Amino acid sequence: MIHITVIGMGLIGTSLAMAIRSADEKEAPLGPSVITGYDKDRRATGDARGRLAIDREAKSLEDALKDAQLVIVAVPVQAIREVFSQIAPLLPNDAVVTDVASTKAQVLDWARELLPATVDFIGGHPMAGKEQSGASAADPALLRDAIYCICPAPRARQPALELIEAMVKQVHAKIYYIDAVEHDAYVAGVSHLPFMLSTALVELVSDSAGWKEMAPLAATGFRDVSRLASGDAEMHRDIALTNRVALGRWLEDAARLLLDMRDQIEAGQSDELLELFEHARQVREAWLLSRPNLRPGEESFENISGVDVTKPSLLGRFGRRPTDRRS
Amino acid sequence: MIHITVIGMGLIGTSLAMAIRSADEKEAPLGPSVITGYDKDRRATGDARGRLAIDREAKSLEDALKDAQLVIVAVPVQAIREVFSQIAPLLPNDAVVTDVASTKAQVLDWARELLPATVDFIGGHPMAGKEQSGASAADPALLRDAIYCICPAPRARQPALELIEAMVKQVHAKIYYIDAVEHDAYVAGVSHLPFMLSTALVELVSDSAGWKEMAPLAATGFRDVSRLASGDAEMHRDIALTNRVALGRWLEDAARLLLDMRDQIEAGQSDELLELFEHARQVREAWLLSRPNLRPGEESFENISGVDVTKPSLLGRFGRRPTDRRS
Repeated sequence: MIHITVIGMGLIGTSLAMAIRSADEKEAPLGPSVITGYDKDRRATGDARGRLAIDREAKSLEDALKDAQLVIVAVPVQAIREVFSQIAPLLPNDAVVTDVASTKAQVLDWARELLPATVDFIGGHPMAGKEQSGASAADPALLRDAIYCICPAPRARQPALELIEAMVKQVHAKIYYIDAVEHDAYVAGVSHLPFMLSTALVELVSDSAGWKEMAPLAATGFRDVSRLASGDAEMHRDIALTNRVALGRWLEDAARLLLDMRDQIEAGQSDELLELFEHARQVREAWLLSRPNLRPGEESFENISGVDVTKPSLLGRFGRRPTDRRS
Repeated sequence: MIHITVIGMGLIGTSLAMAIRSADEKEAPLGPSVITGYDKDRRATGDARGRLAIDREAKSLEDALKDAQLVIVAVPVQAIREVFSQIAPLLPNDAVVTDVASTKAQVLDWARELLPATVDFIGGHPMAGKEQSGASAADPALLRDAIYCICPAPRARQPALELIEAMVKQVHAKIYYIDAVEHDAYVAGVSHLPFMLSTALVELVSDSAGWKEMAPLAATGFRDVSRLASGDAEMHRDIALTNRVALGRWLEDAARLLLDMRDQIEAGQSDELLELFEHARQVREAWLLSRPNLRPGEESFENISGVDVTKPSLLGRFGRRPTDRRS
């Protein structure tokens, strides 16, 4: 029986707990487990308990950590430093500590600075999320087939690594070992930059005098490119501030490329534009092919423009949406 | 019996023809109709005929236009000028001509310059599309509930307007009268700029030395923001070149905003960033609420991260995808 403690009953902490708990005990890589949940907001812990994500609600960090063998710190990245300070004196010897934050170099620094040498820290980042937040939006399926980045502290021991590997396996995610600094630069490009572009788009158009007339013209293209702008503002603020250098560089490059595109358009460089657009198209198609799990959404959200989808399509296989039927 | 001719059997031309034809004749605002299709590529016309989009394949423009009362020019925007020149001497008196191109000011100029005074021109732009192109990807549902922009030529007569209104009604789209120059500035913001941001994102990350390691980390956020980059390169090149001024201005503003964001991040302006992100979030949520037809996709593509969706959700109502079942 392994004692697992989840600190922070938000979207990811609760989803992770649910995914660990929903495994068949006999086949579970972690073996039989008991999960204790703690959140400084007692209602969040109650919500998580209500969703059967945890076996036990802890009323204090002392209570939460007293037998802990695996500690999952699932709080916003800006809160991690404080949580590390608070749990440091309470961690049992040989406990394994991990986190789920979107940036890793800063978190590893905090771990080295604050956690005792008697525990192992292994940074983690499951590449999963959605706009809604909190325990009530949690979903164990979020983790399934997700890439799960692992950035071990340099001094982390082998048994700790094996424990984290077992956890990732248990939630049906895919382990991906990566250096923390590389991780941060890469996710800045494929995750944080897309959020910035999405947010910039919404800010630009809504700031325009014509927004009221423009809004009805915005269709599925706008919807998809702007989707990330609906994400949790606080979380993204924290991400931006803990990944300043890498993100700053991407933003600069993006600005430069947009100005280049403007120049090419202004100069009527037809062939160059065609080549650029065609190159981007091919790169994205190749990427999609390499990520078959992401392909289905691609097709279906495309077709959800209206109603009564009668053509053979992915959506067609789901059937019609009842609310969409014409009377 | 109204004689309709569609020139250009691509995605939109064929979808429009299918949507017109699929209306119940007794209730059809256009009344009984016969649709002739023409494309300089004979295979496209054959495909459209195979999909029952048209009643008759024309072998030449002369043949296509001889009895035409409503002519829908559904060719790429850059080809419109040439098509107008070619059809001008062939158009029957009192024919109504419309198009479906994504930019309107330039098209209205060409119509004024090239079409005879004996016909009425009314520019049109159905706000619908998808990445796939050609008659084989056509789908009458694309038009349903779509905003259909209408930019009449100044001298267009009332009966011509009524005919176009009937057509839009027949395909279950929503008519939206708008000035051509305003149209172009607005769609540059909500449609062409999103494409540019999407393409810029793909170019930036794939141009990076780390792309091979980054690609597996790219998840649903990247997928959605980059979706438009999969669009037809030639079409987007044409759009960019026929909407230079408006698009150029948006690109400049976007570059400036991204640099501002970089400065705020670099300076650690926590409150300002939070305010910016929160503002964008609220604007987008309000926009989504105003576009209930676009909301469903929002929820479902969110949940298509993996498999076995057992929680109550929009996806849940469709049921499971067969391919996703665990063995």
